[in-house]
Parts: sequence; structure tokens; C-alpha cells
Amino acid sequence: MPPPVVSPAEGPFPALAPADQAAVRRSNLSLVLGWLRVAGPGSRTEITAGTGLNKATVSSLVAELTDRGLVRETGERQFGSVGRPARVLELDGHGVGALGLEANVDYLAAYGTDLAGRVLVNRRVSADVVGSSADDALDRLVQLARSALAQMGAHGARVAGVGTAIPGLVDVTAGAVLFAPNLGWHDVPVARRIGAGLDLGPEVPVLVDNDANLSALAEFRQGGEAGTPDLVYLTGEVGVGGGVIVDGRLLRGADGFGGEVGHMALDPTAGELCGCGRRGCWETKVSLAALVRHCLPDAPYGAGAPVRDPEDRVAEVLRRAGVGDARCLNALTEIGRWLGVGASVLVNLVNPRVIVLGGYFARVAPYLLDTAERELARHIISASGGGARPVRIVPSKLGFTAAVRGGAAVAVDAVFADPTRVAVRPEVTA
Amino acid sequence: MPPPVVSPAEGPFPALAPADQAAVRRSNLSLVLGWLRVAGPGSRTEITAGTGLNKATVSSLVAELTDRGLVRETGERQFGSVGRPARVLELDGHGVGALGLEANVDYLAAYGTDLAGRVLVNRRVSADVVGSSADDALDRLVQLARSALAQMGAHGARVAGVGTAIPGLVDVTAGAVLFAPNLGWHDVPVARRIGAGLDLGPEVPVLVDNDANLSALAEFRQGGEAGTPDLVYLTGEVGVGGGVIVDGRLLRGADGFGGEVGHMALDPTAGELCGCGRRGCWETKVSLAALVRHCLPDAPYGAGAPVRDPEDRVAEVLRRAGVGDARCLNALTEIGRWLGVGASVLVNLVNPRVIVLGGYFARVAPYLLDTAERELARHIISASGGGARPVRIVPSKLGFTAAVRGGAAVAVDAVFADPTRVAVRPEVTA
Repeated sequence: MPPPVVSPAEGPFPALAPADQAAVRRSNLSLVLGWLRVAGPGSRTEITAGTGLNKATVSSLVAELTDRGLVRETGERQFGSVGRPARVLELDGHGVGALGLEANVDYLAAYGTDLAGRVLVNRRVSADVVGSSADDALDRLVQLARSALAQMGAHGARVAGVGTAIPGLVDVTAGAVLFAPNLGWHDVPVARRIGAGLDLGPEVPVLVDNDANLSALAEFRQGGEAGTPDLVYLTGEVGVGGGVIVDGRLLRGADGFGGEVGHMALDPTAGELCGCGRRGCWETKVSLAALVRHCLPDAPYGAGAPVRDPEDRVAEVLRRAGVGDARCLNALTEIGRWLGVGASVLVNLVNPRVIVLGGYFARVAPYLLDTAERELARHIISASGGGARPVRIVPSKLGFTAAVRGGAAVAVDAVFADPTRVAVRPEVTA
Repeated sequence: MPPPVVSPAEGPFPALAPADQAAVRRSNLSLVLGWLRVAGPGSRTEITAGTGLNKATVSSLVAELTDRGLVRETGERQFGSVGRPARVLELDGHGVGALGLEANVDYLAAYGTDLAGRVLVNRRVSADVVGSSADDALDRLVQLARSALAQMGAHGARVAGVGTAIPGLVDVTAGAVLFAPNLGWHDVPVARRIGAGLDLGPEVPVLVDNDANLSALAEFRQGGEAGTPDLVYLTGEVGVGGGVIVDGRLLRGADGFGGEVGHMALDPTAGELCGCGRRGCWETKVSLAALVRHCLPDAPYGAGAPVRDPEDRVAEVLRRAGVGDARCLNALTEIGRWLGVGASVLVNLVNPRVIVLGGYFARVAPYLLDTAERELARHIISASGGGARPVRIVPSKLGFTAAVRGGAAVAVDAVFADPTRVAVRPEVTA
């Protein structure tokens, strides 16, 4: 007998791991459901050809997906020139819902869809999250979610997954917020609180992720730049966050902390002190707080002044810029310049095709885009390459719904990854 | 008939695309080969269970992989308690080779393995690449490759793929170098030149990639940190380059320019002018050129001076540091400080578990690691999160072989992704 073969490279591989039978079944259910998602309606024969599974397996998988309310037959169609017409299958999902939630500095939001893509709920309520305890804020978020689920139920959709957006460092595996500086949260078990508050079964995942990550995912799926596989999304609020899509997948990193761009050290020697205690972080240069400091330093808008609502502050900045206020215009240009410098670091490192500006950046984009793009072009090395396509900076069109749409999308993805998360329909088990 | 179902989220999905029969066959060949790579030797029944393919398909796939010299039978084993023993299959690959090549500032290198993991060639020759034309340098690289292939052939391995490392911006799809500032190359069709020079068939891929990217891949597969799915590799040579592994995959970005960390603007206002024409790029702070400028400013080591070999310069730096030369020790500390600042930007953005120092960084690591790690910890936001595991900075153990090992690894991967790239063995077709 020949000697044992050494593994071709002595390390780990991106390939599959050996799986047990139940895992193979789940994976094949996911394969068939994913095929229908991408290819559209088709016959069992087409699914068999497209997936490489055998015909009996496909029939059994389709039956199970039908029982779970994820697939249905829509009629018959003639495939090819001979034989009798075959029954056509398609994604269903009208009875299966996904809920996106968000807690941010001054609002809570909920966004519900069914798996067929209908929007069933879209609500945003003002809330002084930063001024209340995490417990109180989560109680209010659970209330909002309960009412959203009731509304989805009235449309006939049972919830199959919940995705929650929080502006901070999130332990995605544990569903817990480690640190959300702008909310004042430390070590908050968000998923457990929401799961318990909504009385969801153990098969319904409650996912938690950083708001910028989920917004980036929403831009990739549904925004003006949908389908761009290399994309960076920037939130511009009190702080600055980033979500990075690389090759169609969210860059999470080893702990899920990828995209924490607000605290990149861009001016560590001479820069201003940041709220995090360090010097020259990007957000000291480009956050809404920086804009207000330079553009609206006086009462009632400045730091510690009565008007703290970001929307009102942005509106005042736009009003002043609109009438040619030199101080405001200069402040916006300076923000555009540092936006370009910071964007160049992102571009040199992750080489996106587009940078999508969310939050307040989207609102004031007309005043800073030219400067930002000029500065960006000056600092990216690939511009020296000649043939490289330039990266674009564009304002988001999703507004405040980006993060909750992303939350619903990860809940939908969880179902596509493991269709057994959706219970068999009651009328089937009866 | 119900109305047509809208796609569940109106965007693109990471899932499979509908495929034709030949593509499905290739994908299934890859699935079976990948299963044997990960799971180790097994019977047809085990492969059937592990992949979800049907038994007749697995038998046919195994027969084809055997004909191509990628799989072989090794004997029989009893599986379970009943029935007769089944034949055991395992990866073969002794007859199939992968070649890694590299052209760098002052050397050329070749590294050949077979798919079973045996190292068949490992050569590095001095060459004044920066002082010659791209044409001349590639002629010499082709010569080196020819002799490497002859050596591999003598071991019975036919080459199935070539991976080439170049320090510069590479259009991976076209196999062309767009811009390699430290070699002085612009728009060089490297893959075409090497493919033609070696007279390889069209089924043998000649891949080209950035040297830091390939080094990162080698660290991930074979280095001291093998298996760490989130890893950054830094080259420290005349310039500074980076290769980023995210979730086990190389971060390439939209154009393949990901990881161009040397030109991150870390001190764009007050910093020194960089060779790229910009100010305050990271490599003005931490490259070997910066170290020499501060530590060995005078003849014969300084800029424009006779001793230009990086090895000799590093040796002199180490000698002086070893005898306590204050100027050198201060320069190394300052480099450590800026290494930490730049690393913090990488960490905030891509959240790796480890940063591997290649090139000259690995050699001088004892003099800068403490400073770098301290500075890094000061600047990363996740350190505020409490529970986060700290990122480590470690010197590479692969030395000059990292890039060529990575080149061979991508060539191996190309075979695993599409086993039909390997021709049927002559003794089978005869």
C-alpha cells in the first residue's frame, strides 16, 4: 500500500467540511431555495440539472420547502418539444416575515418584509436613547417590535428572523453589544433581551450587528448602487462608522469589528482630541459634531446648547450654506477635504468601486463632494496605475431606512441559509 | 394563477448562478476533490454522503479524477459492521505540479511543488531587476522557470499552473502589471510573456498577483499563523505593501488593488514627501528607506551610496543597534511607533487577529515590536470594548519564500477549483 498522501498544502482551505446527514439536508434545501431565488421559477427537472442533485432528492426537498411555505407550484409549462408539460415551482414566502430593528442615538425603528419582498412595516419613532438606560431603550424597542409583528401577522406573515442594528461594537456570535460609545452602552445582551421580550421560539434567530454594517448590506442589496460587489458605506452622525462589502460579502474581521473607520488615526500628532481619548481620529475631522463646531459654534446649536436634534442642526447648516455663509461653506469644504483623505485610506486598503455616503453626509453632499473627490484622487496610489477605474463617492438614497433594511435582509439570509428555521405550516401538520 | 412572486430582496445574492452541464460537471469534480482534501481518504459511499451527490455521479467523477492523476485507490477498508470492504480513495497529485515565481527589486525566485505537497524546487537568484528593462527581467525569469520545470519533470510532475508575484498593482484578470513603482514597470503583460516563454498549453493558467497578496496567502496556508482566517501580511522592502486575508479569503477589491497600505495618508499635512509625489504616506515613516535615512545617513549606506543591497543595509543596522548606537535605536523606536499607528488603521478597518511582519520588519522585529504593540493598543477602538482579544504582531518565518509559496498555492487552488485543467494522463489516453 502506498504511503499516505500529505495534504497538498499543509493548511486550512476554503472548501467544505465533512458534514452529517442533517447538515447535508439543510445545505441541499438551501441550494434549491437559492437556485429558485437566483434563476426564478422552474421545473423539478431544471432544478435537478441546475443543482447537480438527483431527481428523487430534488422532489423530496421541494416537498419539504412547500410544507414550510417557502415554495409553491404555480401551474404547468411545456419544457422542450416532447413529453407532457411540467409543473413550475417558484419562491413563495408570503407567509414568512423578516423584521429589521434599530436603536440609535435619538430614534428607534422597525422595518418588516415578507420573503416575497413586500414591505409590511416601516416605522421610525423619536426616542431619547442616549438619555435613557439600555434596559429602558430595549423595552421601548421591544414594544415597537411587538406592534410591528402584529402588523406583519395581520398580513399573514409569521416572523422567521429578526436583525437588529446598533451603532457600536457588536459581538455578532453572542448577539451582544460590547461597547456603543454614542449610546453609552457597555456589554448589553441585545439578542437575548429582544428574543425574550418577543417570546420567539429558539428556531427564530435574533441577529445583532453594527448599524453601518447592516446599512452597507442594504446598499448592496437594494440601494442606488445595488450589485456593486466592492462597496463602502459611511454613516455620518454624531460619530462616523463604516460598513465594508468585499466581493459581495460583509467584511466583519476576526471579532466582527471591521469597518470601525471613525477612529482611524489620520492626524495622530497634530490633530484634535477625540471623544475616545485619542488624537486626530477621522471623526474629529468629519463628523456632524465637527461640522457643528466649525459652522454653528454659538447657541442654540453649538455643543451643550438646546438644539441637539441632528436633523435640526443639519437643516440650519444647509440654510446658512444656501445663503452663502462663508464660515459654513469653509467648514463644509474642510470636511470634504478630510472626507477625501480618509476615503483614500479606505480605497488604498480595500479598493472599493464606490463609497456611499449615509447619514448627514448624504444631506450636505452637494457642498463637499467635489472637494472630497479631488482630495481622494490625489491620495490613491492606484490613480498612478493609469488604467484603473476611478472610485466614485455617492450619497445614499436609503436615508434612515438603510440599517433596518439591512437588519431585515440578514434575517432573510438566515432563512435562505437554513430553510428549516421556518416551521412547517400549521395546515400541513394539522 | 397567483401573481408572480417578487424576488425576496430586489438585489444580487451571494448564491449560485444557473449553470450549464459542463460547468456543473466541473463544479462537482471540484466538490469531490475538495472533499478528499479536507476530509482525507474515504470510500465512494462516504463521498456520496458527504457531498450529497448521487452514487453513480460520484463513481463517474472519481473515475475522471483518477484518469487525470488527481485521485487514486489505496486499498480496502471495512466501513460499518456489515457488507464487504470498500475501496479507499485519496488525493494523488504526485504527477501534477504547481510553480510559484517572483520578480522583485534585486532577485528572481522559483518554487515548485506537486499537488501532494512535496517541494520539488526552491531557488532564488540575485538579479538587478530594477536596473534592467521589464523585457530583460522577464526573459531571465522565464529561463529560471524553464529550469525549474525541467527539475519538476525529473520528479515526474507535469505543471498544471503557474503563479507569479510582482511588487506592484496587478490586473489579476488580465495577468498584467499595471504599475510597479519599485521596478519601474508600466503596463507589462506578465502572464502572456511567461505563458509564451514556457510554451504552456491554454489549459495551464499563468496567474499574476501582487507579492504581498501572495505572501499573505502563504502565511495563511503554511506560515507560523496558518489557519488564522483574518490576517494581514506586511512586506517591508524599499516600499511597504500589504496583503489582507479576510475570513479565509484574500481581499482583492474591485480592481485587485486591495492592501496597498504603503500609501495610506497617515500624516498628509505635516509629513515628508513620498516617492509617489504625495505627503505623509505610511512608507515614508516605516520603509527600509526611512530606516536607512535615519540610521545610516552617511556613505557607504545612505541614499545614492554604493551599498544598496537591502540585506547588507539591514545587517549594518542590526550591527549598530546591537552595540547600542543611539541614533539607530531611536530610529528603530520611531519606526516601531509609526508601525503601530499604521497598524491601528488596518485593525480599525479590517479587524485582523494577527499582523505578520515580512521583509526587513521580520529581521529588526526585536527592536520595534514592543513600541509598535503599545502604540497599536493606544489607537484601536476595539480596545475600548473590553472583551476584545488583542491583535498580535508577529515576524514571519517564511523569509524570502513567502511570495513564491503563495504563487504555487494559487496555482494549486486553480486545479482544485477546476480539475479539468489537468490533462488526462498519457497512459490513460494511449
